[in-house]
Amino acid sequence: MSEKPWGGRFKESTSLAVEAYTESISFDSVLYAQDIAGSKAHARMLGEQGIITREEADALRAGLDQVKKEIEDGVFPWRQDLEDVHMNIETRLTQLVGDVGKKLHTGRSRNDQVCLDFRLFASDQLREWMRLTRALVRMFVKRAEEHKDVLLPGCTHMQPAQPVSLAHHLLAYAWMLKRDAERMADCEKRVRISPLGAAALAGTTYPLKPEMVAEELGMYGIFDNSMDAVGDRDFALEALFCGVTAMNHLSRFCEEIIWWANPMFGFVTLSDKHSTGSSIMPQKKNPDVAEIMRGKTGRTYGNLMNLMTILKGIPLTYNRDMQEDKISFIDTDGTVRHSLSLMADMLEGITFRPERMRKALASGFLNATELADYLVTKGMPFREAHHVSGRSVALAEEKGCGLEDLSLEELRGLSELIEEDVFAALDYDTAVARRNVPGGTGPQSVARQLENIKAWLGDKD
Amino acid sequence: MSEKPWGGRFKESTSLAVEAYTESISFDSVLYAQDIAGSKAHARMLGEQGIITREEADALRAGLDQVKKEIEDGVFPWRQDLEDVHMNIETRLTQLVGDVGKKLHTGRSRNDQVCLDFRLFASDQLREWMRLTRALVRMFVKRAEEHKDVLLPGCTHMQPAQPVSLAHHLLAYAWMLKRDAERMADCEKRVRISPLGAAALAGTTYPLKPEMVAEELGMYGIFDNSMDAVGDRDFALEALFCGVTAMNHLSRFCEEIIWWANPMFGFVTLSDKHSTGSSIMPQKKNPDVAEIMRGKTGRTYGNLMNLMTILKGIPLTYNRDMQEDKISFIDTDGTVRHSLSLMADMLEGITFRPERMRKALASGFLNATELADYLVTKGMPFREAHHVSGRSVALAEEKGCGLEDLSLEELRGLSELIEEDVFAALDYDTAVARRNVPGGTGPQSVARQLENIKAWLGDKD
Amino acid sequence: MSEKPWGGRFKESTSLAVEAYTESISFDSVLYAQDIAGSKAHARMLGEQGIITREEADALRAGLDQVKKEIEDGVFPWRQDLEDVHMNIETRLTQLVGDVGKKLHTGRSRNDQVCLDFRLFASDQLREWMRLTRALVRMFVKRAEEHKDVLLPGCTHMQPAQPVSLAHHLLAYAWMLKRDAERMADCEKRVRISPLGAAALAGTTYPLKPEMVAEELGMYGIFDNSMDAVGDRDFALEALFCGVTAMNHLSRFCEEIIWWANPMFGFVTLSDKHSTGSSIMPQKKNPDVAEIMRGKTGRTYGNLMNLMTILKGIPLTYNRDMQEDKISFIDTDGTVRHSLSLMADMLEGITFRPERMRKALASGFLNATELADYLVTKGMPFREAHHVSGRSVALAEEKGCGLEDLSLEELRGLSELIEEDVFAALDYDTAVARRNVPGGTGPQSVARQLENIKAWLGDKD
Amino acid sequence: MSEKPWGGRFKESTSLAVEAYTESISFDSVLYAQDIAGSKAHARMLGEQGIITREEADALRAGLDQVKKEIEDGVFPWRQDLEDVHMNIETRLTQLVGDVGKKLHTGRSRNDQVCLDFRLFASDQLREWMRLTRALVRMFVKRAEEHKDVLLPGCTHMQPAQPVSLAHHLLAYAWMLKRDAERMADCEKRVRISPLGAAALAGTTYPLKPEMVAEELGMYGIFDNSMDAVGDRDFALEALFCGVTAMNHLSRFCEEIIWWANPMFGFVTLSDKHSTGSSIMPQKKNPDVAEIMRGKTGRTYGNLMNLMTILKGIPLTYNRDMQEDKISFIDTDGTVRHSLSLMADMLEGITFRPERMRKALASGFLNATELADYLVTKGMPFREAHHVSGRSVALAEEKGCGLEDLSLEELRGLSELIEEDVFAALDYDTAVARRNVPGGTGPQSVARQLENIKAWLGDKD
Repeated sequence: MSEKPWGGRFKESTSLAVEAYTESISFDSVLYAQDIAGSKAHARMLGEQGIITREEADALRAGLDQVKKEIEDGVFPWRQDLEDVHMNIETRLTQLVGDVGKKLHTGRSRNDQVCLDFRLFASDQLREWMRLTRALVRMFVKRAEEHKDVLLPGCTHMQPAQPVSLAHHLLAYAWMLKRDAERMADCEKRVRISPLGAAALAGTTYPLKPEMVAEELGMYGIFDNSMDAVGDRDFALEALFCGVTAMNHLSRFCEEIIWWANPMFGFVTLSDKHSTGSSIMPQKKNPDVAEIMRGKTGRTYGNLMNLMTILKGIPLTYNRDMQEDKISFIDTDGTVRHSLSLMADMLEGITFRPERMRKALASGFLNATELADYLVTKGMPFREAHHVSGRSVALAEEKGCGLEDLSLEELRGLSELIEEDVFAALDYDTAVARRNVPGGTGPQSVARQLENIKAWLGDKD
Repeated sequence: MSEKPWGGRFKESTSLAVEAYTESISFDSVLYAQDIAGSKAHARMLGEQGIITREEADALRAGLDQVKKEIEDGVFPWRQDLEDVHMNIETRLTQLVGDVGKKLHTGRSRNDQVCLDFRLFASDQLREWMRLTRALVRMFVKRAEEHKDVLLPGCTHMQPAQPVSLAHHLLAYAWMLKRDAERMADCEKRVRISPLGAAALAGTTYPLKPEMVAEELGMYGIFDNSMDAVGDRDFALEALFCGVTAMNHLSRFCEEIIWWANPMFGFVTLSDKHSTGSSIMPQKKNPDVAEIMRGKTGRTYGNLMNLMTILKGIPLTYNRDMQEDKISFIDTDGTVRHSLSLMADMLEGITFRPERMRKALASGFLNATELADYLVTKGMPFREAHHVSGRSVALAEEKGCGLEDLSLEELRGLSELIEEDVFAALDYDTAVARRNVPGGTGPQSVARQLENIKAWLGDKD
Repeated sequence: MSEKPWGGRFKESTSLAVEAYTESISFDSVLYAQDIAGSKAHARMLGEQGIITREEADALRAGLDQVKKEIEDGVFPWRQDLEDVHMNIETRLTQLVGDVGKKLHTGRSRNDQVCLDFRLFASDQLREWMRLTRALVRMFVKRAEEHKDVLLPGCTHMQPAQPVSLAHHLLAYAWMLKRDAERMADCEKRVRISPLGAAALAGTTYPLKPEMVAEELGMYGIFDNSMDAVGDRDFALEALFCGVTAMNHLSRFCEEIIWWANPMFGFVTLSDKHSTGSSIMPQKKNPDVAEIMRGKTGRTYGNLMNLMTILKGIPLTYNRDMQEDKISFIDTDGTVRHSLSLMADMLEGITFRPERMRKALASGFLNATELADYLVTKGMPFREAHHVSGRSVALAEEKGCGLEDLSLEELRGLSELIEEDVFAALDYDTAVARRNVPGGTGPQSVARQLENIKAWLGDKD
Repeated sequence: MSEKPWGGRFKESTSLAVEAYTESISFDSVLYAQDIAGSKAHARMLGEQGIITREEADALRAGLDQVKKEIEDGVFPWRQDLEDVHMNIETRLTQLVGDVGKKLHTGRSRNDQVCLDFRLFASDQLREWMRLTRALVRMFVKRAEEHKDVLLPGCTHMQPAQPVSLAHHLLAYAWMLKRDAERMADCEKRVRISPLGAAALAGTTYPLKPEMVAEELGMYGIFDNSMDAVGDRDFALEALFCGVTAMNHLSRFCEEIIWWANPMFGFVTLSDKHSTGSSIMPQKKNPDVAEIMRGKTGRTYGNLMNLMTILKGIPLTYNRDMQEDKISFIDTDGTVRHSLSLMADMLEGITFRPERMRKALASGFLNATELADYLVTKGMPFREAHHVSGRSVALAEEKGCGLEDLSLEELRGLSELIEEDVFAALDYDTAVARRNVPGGTGPQSVARQLENIKAWLGDKD
């Protein structure tokens, strides 16, 4: 006869291979704090509702505190044969408080219990992601403020397009990350909802008060339908997706760091502590952190795909496939937290090299748009001005010089509308300075951006 | 010399193969309405700001209206060599209104223009998804109200677990879909933001007023940073993800329909118009719509993965890879709209078979939890009650009968706490009736659910 | 000054956070056996080629054996600060054999070394997958042979279609798995190729003899191009894909087990040791192993997507992102091995219930195709015969009986071609018995299948 | 009463919305040639086996030829209400040849028919992929032969590592593509297997001879098990995966082209016909083809994920979800064919800029490994030599020069083992010339590589 909590009708025990294949304790033990908090709230509610006595509730809560202490002191006797974090904790609780421990599970099932634990855990981690995201935004803001006057080639198609300020370039990431934080906050609203009271799938006959549990746990509300509560995991999918967009944004900055650190660009020098070398090539200083971070993006993609696959086409309600949901999330959580945090560190340690950036401006005809815009101010339709500027680029390329190095005669050969004042228009700093449309790279626009993003940071801190 | 809008410095035309490979007109022509609306707003703003005259602005707006009419009348001369929807429309506009047509593009680039069009399109479609989602919720509510008193086996692990009402089962999907609608609404906030004014990547030197454009188009705000505006597509990823969760939910109901239509269950009969037959087996009535819908879930998964892959690790700002973003979304949009709509139709046409569901209750010991709960009310700790009930199941299985068919003596042989009143506790209707915890399957809980979901539907209609 | 193997030019150490983020020792230590085998082969070759002395080579090989023994005895001092399995082993080797240990790395780099280790590991595991796949095929064959005469409804669209033998149904999986094994074998040819000698990326100046290393390690050949050798991971992608198809096939059988175990079908009873119960519902016997296995399919999908994402669009040659390749494979390897093995166990423990299957035949008009075929033998074109049979199904459904229960008159009312011999044609056993086309469900076809699959198993054992 | 081929028992027609949702004719019409070839082979076999007369068989074959001509002449009346390519062709055939047309479907089902068509189509396209892959390898070989003496910085971690020859770099892709072709060939063996004779799922009662059909169609063999034949799609998954690896390889070269075209590198100039410009920035010459190709990689990833999702956990045999299999493949097929072909074009049009590459060598201490190797030849253990070379890099960096610019005294200050001959060792050409280990970048190795790859190309042409 099996000793499992569900073993009544079973004549043979699960094999060791089955136990190893189906266990979750190797990963769900990270949920211990949420499991205990949930059980404490459940116990109090059972007591308040008269389902157990208040004394029993108190005994359970005290016992749970003791279990928590044992876990945090590293002396808790984790057992794989007890399958999961819930049974490990309940078993130990019963050893500590005696038979009353067995009453804790009244009116609930592992189906709603695990979902509660997972929701609390995911919500707690999302809040940590938001905190780390804001810290990283702060670092982008700091580095931007230090480099407001530095210009570099802004690219489209990885071809030099127009000069931009480094501050503007860095702030682009700040705004992406702000959206990530907002997306996480929207998600967290849907995650931190209590399913406790759904029991196995149908609700329970005990006069539970689910709102009381939700309130003690600081949750936004309770489930609407018990079958949905135990059988749906869209909250976890959404949390995984939030990790995907965050890592996607980081992967893009990693890509830029990697190329900027290449000597052909030389736009940045990474600090030694964020680089590694080669066991064979002594000159190497590799941007390993940026590379691994870019690579770990794939891991969050895979985790999302994993859970999407698991949930596809399975009938209501809880199916054991769903046990794997936590593996995806725990892995993504580690990746997201460490990446956000390490990116802030790495960014702080980057030395930007303004002189290399400035030098790069010259090699890309980055003022060709200025010439076209100049012609428009002289009355030429834009499409035509674009053609004239294009021909002047072809001419300069042939002569191996910049647009600003062409003579007025040469330029007038392309259009009689061009006059002496063209050279002022071709100046890079001027080009940037004039782009003060809201959200543009001009100094006033960048100043406004900094103000706005700091207001956002300030509001919430 | 190329005739392309960018051909100034080019000496050789793009090859036909390149044109075919890089064109987008075969799919982006669906954005024509958004492109024209955006151009009209841009023209008006140019006029108001004095960048062009008001007369020019009026001429452009009138011309754009005419272009739109030509498209909707099916007489517009689409040309692949003009690459995309923007150039097709602008070229035709210039034919219609003359040289002033060339002024329309002043102060913008295809980079911010395409992003505006796509954001408007995605936002419009998300609103349609929300409308269809609400319509489907309404249908679930309707069918639930018709079947409040029908019981069927509620399953976990696809094994009979506890009896539930069919209304409760159907409402589980209503709540999932409500969350989908809310997720879409959160997403739409981030989608319907205007990028116009970001120009190629750096903003522009013209004194544009981006808020004016955004206001005419009913958008929630404007971009914060021009490089982010043209280079990020997290809004599209998020819209694709919203499609994924919706289809995931539908795939689960499809799975249930498919099995319920199998004669071993026989819980539903599909209407002829939502079924098809076999070219070889004359008796077949196949749930093709449900199967294809389950299959099309994969398509939305693949589309999300497609765009996630595209965006991984590409540097700022716009890269041409991103042109493929619209393909993913357009395909997902078609899938989501048709699936939501057809599911409502199919659900309306389903005949539920209560007698088959009732019969199924008997074969799964669906009242075993009741026995355990009964014992708890007699003072036994739950874990122990579970064991006793498990042993009684084993006994009934051996005897080939239900728990309710065991004699009082047999039951008391398992626990002396059992008395005559056990048989009332084992009744299925009673079992359901007693689960009136909020969100439970009991009739009062279901009535409250119906009220709540109708309030949600009502609020927003 | 850093103590790393590459620390010469570095002034600051990597931070602990960076070390934790970039380390691989937590997962690549499983490659120890392959790393040591590769190093031994390399050492011998260095000795034979006169790059080091034969005595030095012998000392290195003996030291490596000792390191291996320490690892297998559990006394090896693993250190995270040494980053990976290679540096851990080399460092310990040098402690054991002195300065000659430093000569081991001559002419190689960690880039080719890790690739060699990973290729050997993946190849070893693929061979294990093949062995386990064959073992599972053997179990399908065994269970098929025991159930040659059992009939059950063959389904398309999850609707009863035609009667088939259970042996035939089970053998379908045997053939899928055979293809999996063949796919793994094709893959393994491309995996077990030695990259040693590619060094960092460009080959080396030492007079290495890569073929000698490959031969000692039982590899099929050596790399063709050093940049490709260290920079490509298509072999790993392909191995992950082999895992995907295998798990996909298992997921389909899991799905069938789960439904067959539902009491509405009742086609199978799982052994107690492959089932678990519920902590709340005492009657439950859940097919957890099948569910979790179906779920873990998602994990192998996610792992493939992970590596596909990592490799997308990264330039030559080795990039540190690729370090993550092993995580995907190690996880998939565990999933595939345990799933193949446990599926064989579970299949062995399944009790099939022929009487339930036979009973199910009656409820699906599974002989309607027979009626159509019968009419064709009487001279009616097939499409027309199909219509007549379809009308007879409608008639029987109306009367609530099977086709075989209609009277001759009723049948002749639908077509005058029908005669007394129609009833023989409608018999289920006859229906199956007549399908002896190669690959069909008829007894002779099944016998041939069994012969063929056993020949395949026999050839290779 | 429905007019569908399966409409006998149906009282209501499928709705138009259902028809639109479930139709496949919009994409499966591309299979017409395979469908007709399959039907012709089937007709002949029916005639040879005496199931129909030889005259009937001849009439069917002639009629099918006429249908094919109509399709290819663009006069075939495609109808959506006929659902798919099979019914369109059969319906038209019957119009052309009369009632005998209805006999064509004897002994087969759409389940085996569509699978046959798809297998033939996928196999035909895989052969085309192989042809195009070989053509692209040929182009890499051609460009490599033209640039054997050009050196550029070989990178790891996108940091200059060691000098390599451009030929060697380009050949890395040739070998990747060769593996792709071999992988496709392995796959094609499993694809081009005939399922005809499996009928709906169970085989058929007609005395078919499936081998005869397979032989006429040039297939490698026939199905082993009818349920597997109609219910499995691993052949399609594998074909999609072959597309994934090919596109993954192309995406990596695209990435390199994009960066090499950036003026900071300036390693390549793309031909005008493979570039496009900007509608706003006149100087732009964008590598659009390379960008879009990199982006389209995501599409093949998504298609694989789509079909993997569809097939996960669906029971035997055919389920209608599987109809979506062709959409994935057709899209991937277009992407792969056009990308392989366009890449060959684009590669042919690239102008490599050796002087820019040579100049880049100087900025990366690309001879640091040479210094370490030099010290090893003087008797220093490699790990120690690496440290000395690392310190010399730090010194040169401080002085702003290359290693070759340090004085002998400075170098001897780091190690007394260094002598005058060090400067010969530090020469870049020498560094490359000495790497003649098989597969290395040295000229003899590259010559051998060229020979080997041309032998492979030659063998098969």
